[in-house]
Amino acid sequence: MDSSPDPHRGRLRKAPENFLRPADVAVVAREARGGRRDFLRGAFAAAATGVAAPAALAQAAAREGDPHILQLPEHTRGLGQPVVTDGYGKPSKYESNVQRRQSPGLTQTAQASVSFAPLQSLFGIVTPSGLHFERHHQGWWDIDPSKHRLMVNGMVRTPMVFTIDEIMRLPAQSRFHFIECGANTGMEWGNVAVPTVQYTHGMLSCSEFTGVPLIALLEMAGADLRRARFVLAEGADGSSMTRTIPMDLVRSGEVLVAYGQNGEMLRPENGYPLRLVVPGVQGVSWVKYLRRIELGDQPYAAKDEVLHYVDLMPDGTHRQYTSIQECKSVVTTPSGGQVLLDKGFYSINGLAWSGRGKVRHVDVSVDGGRNWRRARLQGPVMDKCLTRFSIDWVWDGKPAIVQSRATDDTGYVQPSYRQLREVRGTRSIYHNNAIQSWLVQEDGEVRNVQLAA
Amino acid sequence: MDSSPDPHRGRLRKAPENFLRPADVAVVAREARGGRRDFLRGAFAAAATGVAAPAALAQAAAREGDPHILQLPEHTRGLGQPVVTDGYGKPSKYESNVQRRQSPGLTQTAQASVSFAPLQSLFGIVTPSGLHFERHHQGWWDIDPSKHRLMVNGMVRTPMVFTIDEIMRLPAQSRFHFIECGANTGMEWGNVAVPTVQYTHGMLSCSEFTGVPLIALLEMAGADLRRARFVLAEGADGSSMTRTIPMDLVRSGEVLVAYGQNGEMLRPENGYPLRLVVPGVQGVSWVKYLRRIELGDQPYAAKDEVLHYVDLMPDGTHRQYTSIQECKSVVTTPSGGQVLLDKGFYSINGLAWSGRGKVRHVDVSVDGGRNWRRARLQGPVMDKCLTRFSIDWVWDGKPAIVQSRATDDTGYVQPSYRQLREVRGTRSIYHNNAIQSWLVQEDGEVRNVQLAA
Repeated sequence: MDSSPDPHRGRLRKAPENFLRPADVAVVAREARGGRRDFLRGAFAAAATGVAAPAALAQAAAREGDPHILQLPEHTRGLGQPVVTDGYGKPSKYESNVQRRQSPGLTQTAQASVSFAPLQSLFGIVTPSGLHFERHHQGWWDIDPSKHRLMVNGMVRTPMVFTIDEIMRLPAQSRFHFIECGANTGMEWGNVAVPTVQYTHGMLSCSEFTGVPLIALLEMAGADLRRARFVLAEGADGSSMTRTIPMDLVRSGEVLVAYGQNGEMLRPENGYPLRLVVPGVQGVSWVKYLRRIELGDQPYAAKDEVLHYVDLMPDGTHRQYTSIQECKSVVTTPSGGQVLLDKGFYSINGLAWSGRGKVRHVDVSVDGGRNWRRARLQGPVMDKCLTRFSIDWVWDGKPAIVQSRATDDTGYVQPSYRQLREVRGTRSIYHNNAIQSWLVQEDGEVRNVQLAA
Repeated sequence: MDSSPDPHRGRLRKAPENFLRPADVAVVAREARGGRRDFLRGAFAAAATGVAAPAALAQAAAREGDPHILQLPEHTRGLGQPVVTDGYGKPSKYESNVQRRQSPGLTQTAQASVSFAPLQSLFGIVTPSGLHFERHHQGWWDIDPSKHRLMVNGMVRTPMVFTIDEIMRLPAQSRFHFIECGANTGMEWGNVAVPTVQYTHGMLSCSEFTGVPLIALLEMAGADLRRARFVLAEGADGSSMTRTIPMDLVRSGEVLVAYGQNGEMLRPENGYPLRLVVPGVQGVSWVKYLRRIELGDQPYAAKDEVLHYVDLMPDGTHRQYTSIQECKSVVTTPSGGQVLLDKGFYSINGLAWSGRGKVRHVDVSVDGGRNWRRARLQGPVMDKCLTRFSIDWVWDGKPAIVQSRATDDTGYVQPSYRQLREVRGTRSIYHNNAIQSWLVQEDGEVRNVQLAA
């Protein structure tokens, strides 16, 4: 978004620096073709001596003081870095600003905090595991998988204890799903207008998860599937995280005891070596460092479902067990903190998701909700998974309010703040799925605004 | 695969170490429930003083010498690591053996070498970008994107030069595709029986790529789409990589000028900041560090399509421009170098793909091809993308030869070595898509074997 030329005018408005003017293109094309022929001749000569051909050519040219070769950037002249064989690959040094970030002061300790995913910098639907949002209640651990165990007990005939190897030996499934913290967009209940989409919506990520359906483990333990109505999932870290999961979700086969994420083992900060995957349900139920599953016939009323992750209602009561993340969307480009440097063409894009199923469609408004246009959805549109949407926009340089409104395949429509507040009031922390508004100012700066209407 | 108990017997054959015997499960369940109630009381008390509750509890218990708490592992008692806010996340230290690996001596320099992806350790279809295979002709570079340019010239009305920002401002597409080096499985032409699937098939990866359809850039430059039949793609690194791409592929909209991979910018070793994505076509055509596209009316006969990446035929001729990767599959578990520690249940699984479209089905044999059973395919099955398959198997402890045979939606069936050699002989390097055979020996060790039949 920091580009001034309008590519839709068919030509550049100013010559790019450090490379070529468009007028020189024909000359360079001739040179390149000549150079390729030169290179082929050189390659034959060099092959006979066993020397890497381009390096030999570049060295020869440098010795002869060839001004054409010396003008080329270093990466066109020499040998680059060798293949990576003893390290895990990293992003470019030029991408070091793309980071998870903690909201300062959000919690008292960094072990019970959040780091938000940089949604404004991401493409498609996969969140790189190195940028996956984090929410810890007691810090993260790198647990030795050879010592970790998963116990299955409660209403089962034979309580069992599994090693990771035993779980990985069973038939696995891999599925793409979003995970969203129930408190995502929580600051906006107070109309705080957090500045960027990283902080408003960045407790959201999406991965390909691999694991064993929990129902398979329960069946192996001889679960009483007729009477059982809930499972309790318990994590091994010091936060004593326990959550109740309805058996209806487990029976469908959707709930996974997962060890894999985006093709490799889970990352330590996301529950290595085992976490529960509960598609469509808020992240807190995706218990990390999973060590125990208990089968029962009533909800367990654990601290994180009775005291926390409850919805404070206008009448002073609170709702518990509102775990499913309702249909929601957000525009990530343009979004808060970005600057449009020029009028002209932009591709508005963002993410939509629903804990109830698939995204059916997304509408986009650039006038604060008076007019809506239907966006393109990038396929495949998957169940309980992020869907990337986009729509073309020519900005006329006047103030604009950009919004997106998602509808899922149950027919549910993402609410405005007015609609959401009518039901939920203003005192909640959790489960804010209202339409997000970004104000594009005349100077191109984009700001988070909350519309009354 | 290093697990001895058979989970399908409904109970463990030996007590797991370092944790609990099944007989102790009921006791622990009572303790856990009691502990949870204790914790809740503790949490209320601790909240009043602003101290993190579980830490306070653990400290108090330690002071009082509570033997129950002291037996718990460290990660259950204390504060873990804080959220990651100024670094890019990494895999667990226990996964440090999951690495790309170079085949020693395969090439003369590490800048013109290969590092293979660890297929035996991967799940699902997404390859983590940190483990994506590498093939360089002149080493890799971390090119400054603000200085990089893409030129479009040749049979166009207005030659153009694009900055990365300009390209990223255009409407983007994201699609999951495999990329396979044309030389993948190349050593097997010589019946070398490379020991592991990492080395036999590891020049294969799969990502969600994001970019602009090349056809859109050509249209912006006023391409002569009536006369143009080919494009030349040229990279900026010292290898002078140039490849001819048929316009038929470009016209379909499939070919992308890509900057994104698995949600973030391309990795330097995979072409940052710009590479061509040519779905279904061998990796060499996915030109990295892409700097120029030329539109023409005949193939360009570049060095890497005339001298290299050609198929030597039995009659002494060679085939050029055989770029599309035909339908292929491989079992990754069990595979060469792995050891089955016990008889009993295993989930055979692997990967299938086709450069012509979707995988229609995969058949698996455990007796060297005499009998075949149809495998399960993990959805969504996507076009020119890896598809994970699996099938249940109970190993009786006798020697077994495990194979997979994929069929794509054109009806093409992956050939046996005998069928492939009838047409292609034995002297090729490229485009080996034959059925892979793994011998499971009586001692459980898995070896690469090539069947004559």
